[in-house]
Amino acid sequence: MTLTVYLAGEIHSNWREELIEKVKAKGLDLEFVFPQQVHDRSDSIGEDIQGEQPSDYFRDLAASDINNFRTEVLLNKADIVVALFGEQFRQWNTAMDLSAAIAKGKPSIMIRPESLIHPLKELSRKSNVTVGTVEQAAEVLAYVFE
Amino acid sequence: MTLTVYLAGEIHSNWREELIEKVKAKGLDLEFVFPQQVHDRSDSIGEDIQGEQPSDYFRDLAASDINNFRTEVLLNKADIVVALFGEQFRQWNTAMDLSAAIAKGKPSIMIRPESLIHPLKELSRKSNVTVGTVEQAAEVLAYVFE
Amino acid sequence: MTLTVYLAGEIHSNWREELIEKVKAKGLDLEFVFPQQVHDRSDSIGEDIQGEQPSDYFRDLAASDINNFRTEVLLNKADIVVALFGEQFRQWNTAMDLSAAIAKGKPSIMIRPESLIHPLKELSRKSNVTVGTVEQAAEVLAYVFE
Amino acid sequence: MTLTVYLAGEIHSNWREELIEKVKAKGLDLEFVFPQQVHDRSDSIGEDIQGEQPSDYFRDLAASDINNFRTEVLLNKADIVVALFGEQFRQWNTAMDLSAAIAKGKPSIMIRPESLIHPLKELSRKSNVTVGTVEQAAEVLAYVFE
Amino acid sequence: MTLTVYLAGEIHSNWREELIEKVKAKGLDLEFVFPQQVHDRSDSIGEDIQGEQPSDYFRDLAASDINNFRTEVLLNKADIVVALFGEQFRQWNTAMDLSAAIAKGKPSIMIRPESLIHPLKELSRKSNVTVGTVEQAAEVLAYVFE
Amino acid sequence: MTLTVYLAGEIHSNWREELIEKVKAKGLDLEFVFPQQVHDRSDSIGEDIQGEQPSDYFRDLAASDINNFRTEVLLNKADIVVALFGEQFRQWNTAMDLSAAIAKGKPSIMIRPESLIHPLKELSRKSNVTVGTVEQAAEVLAYVFE
Amino acid sequence: MTLTVYLAGEIHSNWREELIEKVKAKGLDLEFVFPQQVHDRSDSIGEDIQGEQPSDYFRDLAASDINNFRTEVLLNKADIVVALFGEQFRQWNTAMDLSAAIAKGKPSIMIRPESLIHPLKELSRKSNVTVGTVEQAAEVLAYVFE
Amino acid sequence: MTLTVYLAGEIHSNWREELIEKVKAKGLDLEFVFPQQVHDRSDSIGEDIQGEQPSDYFRDLAASDINNFRTEVLLNKADIVVALFGEQFRQWNTAMDLSAAIAKGKPSIMIRPESLIHPLKELSRKSNVTVGTVEQAAEVLAYVFE
Repeated sequence: MTLTVYLAGEIHSNWREELIEKVKAKGLDLEFVFPQQVHDRSDSIGEDIQGEQPSDYFRDLAASDINNFRTEVLLNKADIVVALFGEQFRQWNTAMDLSAAIAKGKPSIMIRPESLIHPLKELSRKSNVTVGTVEQAAEVLAYVFE
Repeated sequence: MTLTVYLAGEIHSNWREELIEKVKAKGLDLEFVFPQQVHDRSDSIGEDIQGEQPSDYFRDLAASDINNFRTEVLLNKADIVVALFGEQFRQWNTAMDLSAAIAKGKPSIMIRPESLIHPLKELSRKSNVTVGTVEQAAEVLAYVFE
Repeated sequence: MTLTVYLAGEIHSNWREELIEKVKAKGLDLEFVFPQQVHDRSDSIGEDIQGEQPSDYFRDLAASDINNFRTEVLLNKADIVVALFGEQFRQWNTAMDLSAAIAKGKPSIMIRPESLIHPLKELSRKSNVTVGTVEQAAEVLAYVFE
Repeated sequence: MTLTVYLAGEIHSNWREELIEKVKAKGLDLEFVFPQQVHDRSDSIGEDIQGEQPSDYFRDLAASDINNFRTEVLLNKADIVVALFGEQFRQWNTAMDLSAAIAKGKPSIMIRPESLIHPLKELSRKSNVTVGTVEQAAEVLAYVFE
Repeated sequence: MTLTVYLAGEIHSNWREELIEKVKAKGLDLEFVFPQQVHDRSDSIGEDIQGEQPSDYFRDLAASDINNFRTEVLLNKADIVVALFGEQFRQWNTAMDLSAAIAKGKPSIMIRPESLIHPLKELSRKSNVTVGTVEQAAEVLAYVFE
Repeated sequence: MTLTVYLAGEIHSNWREELIEKVKAKGLDLEFVFPQQVHDRSDSIGEDIQGEQPSDYFRDLAASDINNFRTEVLLNKADIVVALFGEQFRQWNTAMDLSAAIAKGKPSIMIRPESLIHPLKELSRKSNVTVGTVEQAAEVLAYVFE
Repeated sequence: MTLTVYLAGEIHSNWREELIEKVKAKGLDLEFVFPQQVHDRSDSIGEDIQGEQPSDYFRDLAASDINNFRTEVLLNKADIVVALFGEQFRQWNTAMDLSAAIAKGKPSIMIRPESLIHPLKELSRKSNVTVGTVEQAAEVLAYVFE
Repeated sequence: MTLTVYLAGEIHSNWREELIEKVKAKGLDLEFVFPQQVHDRSDSIGEDIQGEQPSDYFRDLAASDINNFRTEVLLNKADIVVALFGEQFRQWNTAMDLSAAIAKGKPSIMIRPESLIHPLKELSRKSNVTVGTVEQAAEVLAYVFE
């Protein structure tokens, strides 16, 4: 039984590589999917495909449609969602993806630093499990296979 | 036909009163529900009901369960969700409520200032309509009854 | 028991008034909702609310979001969908609304002239009942109350 | 991870072959399904299987049941829907299939020429992404695998 | 709290009147809906509305679409389904309506004579309650209000 | 807006009366439904309606069908579920009703004494809120209307 | 793409073998599942597993639970349902399975002799396609792969 | 066709090994998943991953989140649920898992000793099949493949 895990959240650090490596080390039968990781590409994808847009506003609009398409395709295939919130950005996409996944009945793990406990408290309680580190998330994933 | 509207988002300004007033002036058959508006009460509700908790972390945890219960009850009854993002806070609850509502098939309107166009672009595109002001949201609501 | 009927389709003729009148004459307990009937308003609603857009393309885009919002709100409330196809226009919105309604489990009646039997044959067969005139649709609605 | 793509729309041009070729050239793990491509066969399939019918009307009716069966089987298996609208035909089946797919939560791409922007504006906005060419659709599909 | 009850099944006896009377005598807050009771009308409704059809086969086809429309509208509104099987007819519509209702999560009561225990055993076990008489069905309905 | 609350759980104490009284004192717009309260009646309802059964086993079987029917009808109508676990009984029906309600998306409150914290820990975490007393549950219900 | 087909209906003739053979001859990628084919076994399965029951009534009851379990497991896995009605029996199970499958969104083919056109007319119209022979059903299945 | 079976219930006896062995002996194509079997590990998993908690209450809370995550992931993948109730424990998790599975449309088998017939009667009747021994459950599973 292969389980597919969608890794939502921050794309400015290498937490996905870290998680995948830890999980591989444990020999778990997991497959990972995720949003576009290259930030510039995710911002320019609309213009990359549809050509120049009249303003930054419309540039964003064209990009977001394609990013949403990608997310929806991959989230539909996922058995589990892991969402990491970092300290620097507002990361509404992370909240959006995690909340949509929960509403669709996907079991979920939230990773967040101590400093975000208060602002994320409601979303944290809607997730199945909330942890503080990538290592802990990997242990929760491993527990499914024990 | 009475429509029920859930007003998600910022609780530090009086945008809800403003919207309700505008809508009443138009004579629309709308009923409004919303999260707890008194910020301190929403933070202390866990301890208010369950007594003192061992630390701030557990105080948050107790409060968030009861806030989530309230939101879920009222969101289930809503025909429409209006979500306002302001500039000051991270407002992950707003993103969480809006995303959950969209996933449940509730038509939605997002209100956000120009400065948030970029970070909210994906969630904006999943909402039915995105506007910049409370007045515009009231006009969209009015359009349903034309 | 009041039943709510969404009247999808052509907005350039007065078939809705005709249907509502016939149904009233029969004394049926039905409530009717429908898309924006004033064609110009449905085309300009985006700019009416959001202000001028950079081009016709973006004008259409702004309008369609608000029209979709309206339709989704009202379709969700409907117990029955009646969709009329006329000879003059392409009426993809009619096909879109009817197909979405069927996918959501709403019972439906299609009204179409003889000339459209062939191009509409597949959609016709997904609807519960297909008739040729507004009078016949009114009789089908009346049959529910016999 | 293999994704299944349903190609709805026009059957009088070779856009499906063009898209499949482009996608193969990119080495994407996609499987394609589509409606009956031979137009005469899709019109005669009812009589081909059930024998002669009393009139053209009943011939159409017999054919459409079997076409709808085919579409429903394949659409249920699809992870993604791509729908192309051409200039020549009314293509209500394309609108029907795309709208049903969206209602069932399938991510979708619409392809349409500039001349159809206005009449397709509402359906366009319910799709995840709308593009003008088959090449652009192929690029959107490729983006999922980046 | 008013509960709506759909009375599926045999239309050649007056069991519906009997049940409604018994329930009224108990003062229960129930509202009843049911299929067309006049057998000839349910057979001719297609031709009554759509005009003469080419043969008995197509007469049946036209009628059944309108009967299915009626059933679907009313079944969607029902909180409870009661289905009575009599000894004389094959009553596939009764089985169809009851099975569809169960699949949609509607609580159900089956009424059937002793002679039909064996052929109805599987469907009986999918219903919530199976009884032998209309009086017993009325008692089960009354139990909800105790 | 009236909310309907299903009160699952123990039927050997008067906790329902206590909760309803507290809620009335607060003037909340709530309507309450619950399982059969008279224990003997809920055990004998099968034989009361269907006559004597061959053994205790079949007596239980006949009763449970009718109890399940009642619960399903009322649970479907509920907006909120409150479930109380007492110390004396195994109360699998309480666990069953609460778990089914959660699976159907009904917001829920669990009430349980301290002694049951450990055995109920998993079910407690699937409920929205867990409290120790009826008074606390009433306060949570009141919070929805603040 | 392998499609799974559930073959509901009559178990006293060899129509399943006939259909499977025809389909194999066409080289279609189909997998078939079906109810218990040995009639005596399906009647005695309750007592075979649970031991002797107090009467024929309870024997039926024990068997039907296990038959329903089997059907539910296999129907859940099916992409398509084919249901054959023969002339001899009442076949309420066939109607039950077909109706449940349609309610769950499974595309379906009904096979019935001319003599059953009238009593099966409503269920026939809820199925995607209705044919008169096993050969025709095989052709409809083949059409999916054209 | 491989079917996945979730084995809910008692973790203090070796009934799972017994069932799996019997099923293997029959050569059935079944794959088994189950809750954490090591009782101490399931109680300490919260602290094992998240570190020491302020009290037993919070230790339970941390553990239950991770146990629920595991169950939800595996239950979502299951085609069938088998739930065994033993005499010694209250086993609310067993009732919770079985009831959630039934609400999600998963076919189910309950195994329980004679002494539990009365307290489990309602849950028993919501399951597809109830048996008294592991051997009987294995025979019911085998029946699906006959």
